[in-house]
Amino acid sequence: MPDIHQGSANYLDEAELAALDAHWRAANYLAVGQIYLMANPLLREPLKPEHIKPRLLGHWGTSPGLNLVYTHLNRVARDHGKDTICVWGPGHGGPAVLANSWLEGTYSETYPDVSRDAEGMARLFRQFSFPGGVPSHVAPETPGSIHEGGELGYSLSHAYGAALDNPGLLVACVIGDGEAETGPLAASWHSNKFLDPVHDGAVLPILHLNGYKIANPTVLARLPRDELDDFLRGLGHDPLHVEGDDALQVHSAMARAMDTALDRISAIQHGAREQGVTERKRWPIILLRTPKGWTGPAEVDGVQVEGTWRAHQVPLSSVRENPDHLRQLEEWLHSYRPAELFDDRGRPRERVLECVPAGPRRLGASVHANGGLLVQDLPIPPLERYAVPVDKPGTTLHEPTRVLGDLLEGVMENTAERRDFRLVGPDETASNRLQAVYGATGKAWQARTLEVDEHLDRHGRVMEILSEHTCQGWLEGYLLTGRHGLFSCYEAFVHIVDSMVNQHIKWLRTSRRLPWRRPIASLNYLLTSHVWRQDSNGFSHQDPGFIDHVLNKSPEVVRVYLPPDANTLLSVADHVLRSRDYVNVVVAGKQPCFDWLTLEQARGHCARGAGIWDWAGAENESGEPDVVLGCAGDVPTLEILAAAQLLRRHLPHLAVRVVNVVDLARLLPKEEHPHGMPDAEFDALFTSDKPVIFAYHGYPWLIHRLAYRRTGHANLHVRGYKEEGTTTTPFDMVVRNDLDRYRLVMDVIDRVPGLAVRAATVRQEMADVRLRHHAWIREHGTDLPEVSEWNWNS
Amino acid sequence: MPDIHQGSANYLDEAELAALDAHWRAANYLAVGQIYLMANPLLREPLKPEHIKPRLLGHWGTSPGLNLVYTHLNRVARDHGKDTICVWGPGHGGPAVLANSWLEGTYSETYPDVSRDAEGMARLFRQFSFPGGVPSHVAPETPGSIHEGGELGYSLSHAYGAALDNPGLLVACVIGDGEAETGPLAASWHSNKFLDPVHDGAVLPILHLNGYKIANPTVLARLPRDELDDFLRGLGHDPLHVEGDDALQVHSAMARAMDTALDRISAIQHGAREQGVTERKRWPIILLRTPKGWTGPAEVDGVQVEGTWRAHQVPLSSVRENPDHLRQLEEWLHSYRPAELFDDRGRPRERVLECVPAGPRRLGASVHANGGLLVQDLPIPPLERYAVPVDKPGTTLHEPTRVLGDLLEGVMENTAERRDFRLVGPDETASNRLQAVYGATGKAWQARTLEVDEHLDRHGRVMEILSEHTCQGWLEGYLLTGRHGLFSCYEAFVHIVDSMVNQHIKWLRTSRRLPWRRPIASLNYLLTSHVWRQDSNGFSHQDPGFIDHVLNKSPEVVRVYLPPDANTLLSVADHVLRSRDYVNVVVAGKQPCFDWLTLEQARGHCARGAGIWDWAGAENESGEPDVVLGCAGDVPTLEILAAAQLLRRHLPHLAVRVVNVVDLARLLPKEEHPHGMPDAEFDALFTSDKPVIFAYHGYPWLIHRLAYRRTGHANLHVRGYKEEGTTTTPFDMVVRNDLDRYRLVMDVIDRVPGLAVRAATVRQEMADVRLRHHAWIREHGTDLPEVSEWNWNS
Repeated sequence: MPDIHQGSANYLDEAELAALDAHWRAANYLAVGQIYLMANPLLREPLKPEHIKPRLLGHWGTSPGLNLVYTHLNRVARDHGKDTICVWGPGHGGPAVLANSWLEGTYSETYPDVSRDAEGMARLFRQFSFPGGVPSHVAPETPGSIHEGGELGYSLSHAYGAALDNPGLLVACVIGDGEAETGPLAASWHSNKFLDPVHDGAVLPILHLNGYKIANPTVLARLPRDELDDFLRGLGHDPLHVEGDDALQVHSAMARAMDTALDRISAIQHGAREQGVTERKRWPIILLRTPKGWTGPAEVDGVQVEGTWRAHQVPLSSVRENPDHLRQLEEWLHSYRPAELFDDRGRPRERVLECVPAGPRRLGASVHANGGLLVQDLPIPPLERYAVPVDKPGTTLHEPTRVLGDLLEGVMENTAERRDFRLVGPDETASNRLQAVYGATGKAWQARTLEVDEHLDRHGRVMEILSEHTCQGWLEGYLLTGRHGLFSCYEAFVHIVDSMVNQHIKWLRTSRRLPWRRPIASLNYLLTSHVWRQDSNGFSHQDPGFIDHVLNKSPEVVRVYLPPDANTLLSVADHVLRSRDYVNVVVAGKQPCFDWLTLEQARGHCARGAGIWDWAGAENESGEPDVVLGCAGDVPTLEILAAAQLLRRHLPHLAVRVVNVVDLARLLPKEEHPHGMPDAEFDALFTSDKPVIFAYHGYPWLIHRLAYRRTGHANLHVRGYKEEGTTTTPFDMVVRNDLDRYRLVMDVIDRVPGLAVRAATVRQEMADVRLRHHAWIREHGTDLPEVSEWNWNS
Repeated sequence: MPDIHQGSANYLDEAELAALDAHWRAANYLAVGQIYLMANPLLREPLKPEHIKPRLLGHWGTSPGLNLVYTHLNRVARDHGKDTICVWGPGHGGPAVLANSWLEGTYSETYPDVSRDAEGMARLFRQFSFPGGVPSHVAPETPGSIHEGGELGYSLSHAYGAALDNPGLLVACVIGDGEAETGPLAASWHSNKFLDPVHDGAVLPILHLNGYKIANPTVLARLPRDELDDFLRGLGHDPLHVEGDDALQVHSAMARAMDTALDRISAIQHGAREQGVTERKRWPIILLRTPKGWTGPAEVDGVQVEGTWRAHQVPLSSVRENPDHLRQLEEWLHSYRPAELFDDRGRPRERVLECVPAGPRRLGASVHANGGLLVQDLPIPPLERYAVPVDKPGTTLHEPTRVLGDLLEGVMENTAERRDFRLVGPDETASNRLQAVYGATGKAWQARTLEVDEHLDRHGRVMEILSEHTCQGWLEGYLLTGRHGLFSCYEAFVHIVDSMVNQHIKWLRTSRRLPWRRPIASLNYLLTSHVWRQDSNGFSHQDPGFIDHVLNKSPEVVRVYLPPDANTLLSVADHVLRSRDYVNVVVAGKQPCFDWLTLEQARGHCARGAGIWDWAGAENESGEPDVVLGCAGDVPTLEILAAAQLLRRHLPHLAVRVVNVVDLARLLPKEEHPHGMPDAEFDALFTSDKPVIFAYHGYPWLIHRLAYRRTGHANLHVRGYKEEGTTTTPFDMVVRNDLDRYRLVMDVIDRVPGLAVRAATVRQEMADVRLRHHAWIREHGTDLPEVSEWNWNS
């Protein structure tokens, strides 16, 4: 391949090129060593089968490219004096990033037993992809990393998230040409329309065209040059090409491209910060085209490997068994001339480390990649300022998320200088009724504006793009670098990021087990526009299953809250925004909802996570109810309370207890989740022998899955969403899913033994109202007046 | 806005322009009517509050644009004589598509009570977004549709899926500028590198830049023209611009753009089909820039509405209460001059229908949008040809997916002429060991090729792109238009399409309730490279939760199979490929796996879905076991059988029954799922009172969630994946998650009452092996020889 970066061969002097090359060769040597060797790391004796790992695992193909980028980022971090981190999209290439971290010393500082000498090198090699060792990808265990490279697609949105509100930071981001085919990556290119050159740092994408995925060429690598350039220019970038397979020429071209990119970034930032330039500029991007598996075996067993997909993982697969492979591996390792790179004690020679910057400028040492070291407590204003007054429960109505919006405005105000809080959402902030935040900040926007626009703000901290993936990626990057945030989303469509939240939960679970990783702010979801209130959108917008999805994951990380009114939402929000290292899912409505609890009551209730609502029940002197009405979620709580009122009216001698659950994990046994209730507490709330009719926000079987070990589980009857949805009224939705007050009263009558004869009549009356509902709604298109005009005191 | 399509004002003669405009106005009138009116559809009397719906729901903003596109697609379908369907990305604009379907007559043919006259128009209006009526989006209920427009992002991949192997079909695809921000849409642009101009039809994307989402401008609409053009050219398209707000000028420009696009498409197809052109050409794309809510109220309550985000849903929101709004609505409706459009009986006048093509050429009448009318039985070769011989169970090893690959090669061969079967996957066909298919067909690829490439084929029917979203969208579009397919995917990463499969399941559930929609081939997933065998990738690649996700959805649609060996996989594959209207999830390993059942046994076992493996157990004469060992999944089955062998050896008097479950839904009560077992059958398999130790492939609580109603549920003890994962050996993975044979034997001993004294010793021996495992693996990096060399006869 020709080097097409004109004149680049002369860009640096020979000594500097040689030093960069030495660093790169050392990193390549260490990457190969990790994949293959469990002994003889410096090749001080001829390579023998017993030096080779029994299971050969790892991804060589991308490693030389990552080593090249790391080497050159070292140089610019050293020369440009900029705080730099890198997001390694092709994170399968764990050996490369580990190699560089070991070379620069941060690995040994983090893990002193893997010292920067022969003994440490042996450990570095052995531990890689070895049981009890380190994972094969860039992972939480890797110093300097904020990005697990296993699931592809999120590198660029993570990079932008890290750059937001970090004006001094450069976030390099290597994007594999495989990853570039994914949807989340493709969407995240447009992040540059949201990056504020004044308050945010810079992102330098490096698109690595190594040409192949596991078994196929990549789409971008097979486009004609002009088509690819059009594409990147169309994405608002200014492409800089680096291409070739001659190492020194590529070093020279890469150094020039990096310097050019950094100079352009500085110019953009200077213009915006010092000269008041507001026009959106094209940010540089580096296109790096080098062979897959570069410097590895050109051919193995008679077929081409270097420069093809066959170099993706382990190019020589039978080294223990096949003497030819063993010989080829030995030659391959020697081709890096290890004696030039490491001294007698296995330490990197001075020249190898020439390009490495000092101390905290090293990529693996950046405090930004260990955000817990930077995170400050969020200045949340006193909730009293926002609480709604509640004289009598169930009389006044508020939109809970609107009340939360007021609180968030307060948080935005208090962080106006610090700039460490962001609200993200897929074009739904106002739809989700959080628009009060615009009193304190606007919506980030760098593209063209028109007079009719509202709240667009070059410096805004509300982030809206119609991509749940990009929102999630931004927020993850922002949190991992030590800041705070909230993601508000339609409940049904948060499933779009199911797989991303999996990975973030995995990251947190692993990080919590690493003492050197400090706790970061939790990832907080506000799920609203929920399943029960999709009046205008219908079936496609109805799905409460994200709760189930999240509760499958590591219990030390996941929490789910279902506040039933405005004040409980405030209390829950306050709690989750202060928390660390969790994924908190908060489900709350945006539609007018009865206020049940005062702020003080709400705080107590939320602290307990589940409790008896005395005022709502009708217990007798014995203190033992005949039936327990359980509820979790705003709409189920409304229906349960309406059912309780009907029971009080129609069956006044029935002892009814109402239990509301805010913190869903409380239903789990305490052995299964840190929030789980002991059995005694569960029985004290729900009894061990009385019927429990439980109205739940989501899929009813989730409650069984949480509570199946409880003594009284056989008495538990759960109503919830069972995929009966369409465009209809709110009350018709609950009727269709048998969650309505009348059905709940019938459930009680069906399950409480020994009721008065009158109960049969009441049951029939309830069934009659449901029939009346069906007739009424078809004629009028609205709910029965007795439902739409209901309140707790009626 | 200026019309920039030069000279377009004169493209059609005045009469034709007027006819097109009449059709468009009629559609606009009908769209507004659906959102607002429940009586007085033809405005024969002055509009009164009681004519207005009590709940105003619907999306006006996008409707005039969709009406414009439908009108012009009518014209080209009429003039170019091409089978045409359209995928309506902004499917929120249901009123528009319903309006056009009613105008062209297909709506009344599908739903005779909604006749094409005044009475039918009244029904059309009233039913829209009305309880018991039709959803607000384009949905399965909509004639001519294959795409629910609620969740955005999938229009273009659906369109390409529909075009594959449909050489005569034109698939127009309206992409909203909001939807264009999503990841799945952004990824799917590259589908044009996979579209074969010889065997596939054409996709005509129409990017509708109406400028706003719910509350924000769109990114693409605010790019400078040259940047947007660069972007689209970079995506391999040739942009045609249509822009303006003068109706006649826009009609003229749109007609010219459509003719140009169709001519270019014909030229590309002619070149490829008749002249052997193989070079990839730029396909046309239409950029339509018209105001959001065009022709609606310009201002409401003193603020601009037309041309802004405020036109997104219902521009006049208080029509019943506010006389000004009522008056504005009346003016708005009259602005379309309904008397010119509909005759005295409410039927569309002749001129309105001038642009509408005849009979089956109408968009709503296309048989391609009701794929069940086209689908043929798949010619699956006899399984005997591919079955592996099994003399003794558990002695020989095969890679199940490799055996399946042989069967799929047979299917590919048998469909070589018909071309109605496709295999899709994110660059994993070979990794998942299905590469035998390349014996019959190659991988679709239209971009540049190099000599080193393998199996790339301009006419291939294996579809690989590193985007699960695009794979899923292609396959859905292909199935919905009457063909067959299989999606093979790494188990963990299928979560990427959680939300897409939700929508497809919703589509199927609704379609099944519509008699006119005929059953289509099922959407079949092969999930492999599963949680237990991610040896080289580790924690990020370990997630069995898709099963849980799918089992939350409509039971009439979802099925989950866990074949434990090669022959059961063949039998399951045969079944799912023949099935209709389901989403089938098949989880099977790609690693060498013991063969347990002959093909004949496998068929019987799969037909039952769950059964006792007599040969594996050790029951005594009473026929009642002391303990039941249940298993589902290949790795759990192996561990259960190894545990059964250990029990037989160490506790020979213990009566052990082994039950294997292939079809997971069989564990559900029969009231909950069509495959659910009656209690008597469940008890006959698992007993109602004996301990059951169940080894399950995924999250253990799923088994409890399925079986909690069974009599013996309290005796059920489940082992499965509990998020303990990393890069390690296969056996270490099961040990970490307490699913290993030794732990299972300990579980048995802990739970079976009255065991011989010797049991305590056996338990200690098992615990000791586990300790030995931990020490061994840390030293050697491999599994204990007694594990790696195990077989059923050892």
